[in-house]
Amino acid sequence: MTPQDVLQTMLAHDRFTEWLGLRIEEHREGYCRLRYRIREDMVNGFHSAHGGVLFAAADSAFAFACNSHGFITVALECAISFMRPAGVGEWLTVEATEVYLGNKTGVYDIRTVNEKGELVALFKGTGYRTSKPVA
Amino acid sequence: MTPQDVLQTMLAHDRFTEWLGLRIEEHREGYCRLRYRIREDMVNGFHSAHGGVLFAAADSAFAFACNSHGFITVALECAISFMRPAGVGEWLTVEATEVYLGNKTGVYDIRTVNEKGELVALFKGTGYRTSKPVA
Amino acid sequence: MTPQDVLQTMLAHDRFTEWLGLRIEEHREGYCRLRYRIREDMVNGFHSAHGGVLFAAADSAFAFACNSHGFITVALECAISFMRPAGVGEWLTVEATEVYLGNKTGVYDIRTVNEKGELVALFKGTGYRTSKPVA
Amino acid sequence: MTPQDVLQTMLAHDRFTEWLGLRIEEHREGYCRLRYRIREDMVNGFHSAHGGVLFAAADSAFAFACNSHGFITVALECAISFMRPAGVGEWLTVEATEVYLGNKTGVYDIRTVNEKGELVALFKGTGYRTSKPVA
Repeated sequence: MTPQDVLQTMLAHDRFTEWLGLRIEEHREGYCRLRYRIREDMVNGFHSAHGGVLFAAADSAFAFACNSHGFITVALECAISFMRPAGVGEWLTVEATEVYLGNKTGVYDIRTVNEKGELVALFKGTGYRTSKPVA
Repeated sequence: MTPQDVLQTMLAHDRFTEWLGLRIEEHREGYCRLRYRIREDMVNGFHSAHGGVLFAAADSAFAFACNSHGFITVALECAISFMRPAGVGEWLTVEATEVYLGNKTGVYDIRTVNEKGELVALFKGTGYRTSKPVA
Repeated sequence: MTPQDVLQTMLAHDRFTEWLGLRIEEHREGYCRLRYRIREDMVNGFHSAHGGVLFAAADSAFAFACNSHGFITVALECAISFMRPAGVGEWLTVEATEVYLGNKTGVYDIRTVNEKGELVALFKGTGYRTSKPVA
Repeated sequence: MTPQDVLQTMLAHDRFTEWLGLRIEEHREGYCRLRYRIREDMVNGFHSAHGGVLFAAADSAFAFACNSHGFITVALECAISFMRPAGVGEWLTVEATEVYLGNKTGVYDIRTVNEKGELVALFKGTGYRTSKPVA
């Protein structure tokens, strides 16, 4: 399977990515960049994007990047730092980069930036690669 | 403000918590327990709850617990480990406990378990408490 | 191998644990509790225990707990929160508990407390279990 | 105080950095790069560098980078991923970069690489900046 096939297979079932309105701009082995817009139904009690939404979009980019090699890869552990809030209407760009690919595990750096290029969240994800092919 | 007032104020605007269908079962200073059910629109590309959904529900419990003292508290850094998948229809229980409350920061342990009491995700959150009251 | 055999095998070579002066008080499958004292050569530039020392003692407790099942287990990812400083002469107690044990991975909660029972550091560790026996 | 003054003040008391044999190669506002060599007394039970040693060197680089602005900055939360072991005699290079500097908090990315340039550990650190000057 090519990275494109993997992505299509995943997107065919990923209902939550659909809800988030994620638009994938670039995807290849070990890499994914996507964009999305904060909607009114994505806010927390303080009128800015819920941490779970920021995490979720980064987690999707992580999943698309780490499954790109064709084997089902599950997130083991993720650490996210929140730098600044994002408000309704803002477009965010998420970029997932592979920083390490081992035999069984991989580590990814996922950065979310706003329209000014300011860092909104920094996500470090560790995935465990099974031997099962994606489709 | 009592913890109950804080919670009502937060819930009045927290559109994403509403979307998640979180039902708060217990809430007091430094503590929150809630339940929710995994729906079809919450799944990832592999038919189980999206990591972002699991994170988000834990993050909401964290927010309700750490804001309970009446001051706006923002998540600085969260680390989540995923232990087992949760499927559509499963009810999950999330419990946020304060493990440390300092002058400016607090640390919380948030555990998500399934109906069998098995751990689904373990979340450690660090919050920064501002001097601004919640309302 | 029993957990005791594993521990003896590990301790026979663990020079840094020796330097730290860790005293193991209890050790069994999935669990380890140890104590140590902060020495003058363990401090950072602000006269309190270096974060690396606090991490290291917790990491050793984690290693003894997760290798106790007899298979070489390596730390994949650790997240540590620092709550309060520890000064020279203080005795610290470190307790590692298994919160999840899966097929290949395990998650551990490791808490460091001072003599007053106050939390000094909270460590969450994810280990990957190989199929190689410890000795 | 210049970053150099801060560094000298910190190094004057940092006994554990001394024990680790850290050699600072470059230091300026928000940045630190250092090198060190794994010694026999730094190994764990499996003959490779103890995770606590790898963490500690990264934590020192983090401390030198985040205190460089002249205010005492304490580590709140650190997440480290271990990619590959480092053996006795290996020289490691640690580079700490500021990825975010806010009013009160800062986030740093710290990478440890071996002589081949391979990533050994990836550390993400969140610091809290007090209003107290370093000296």
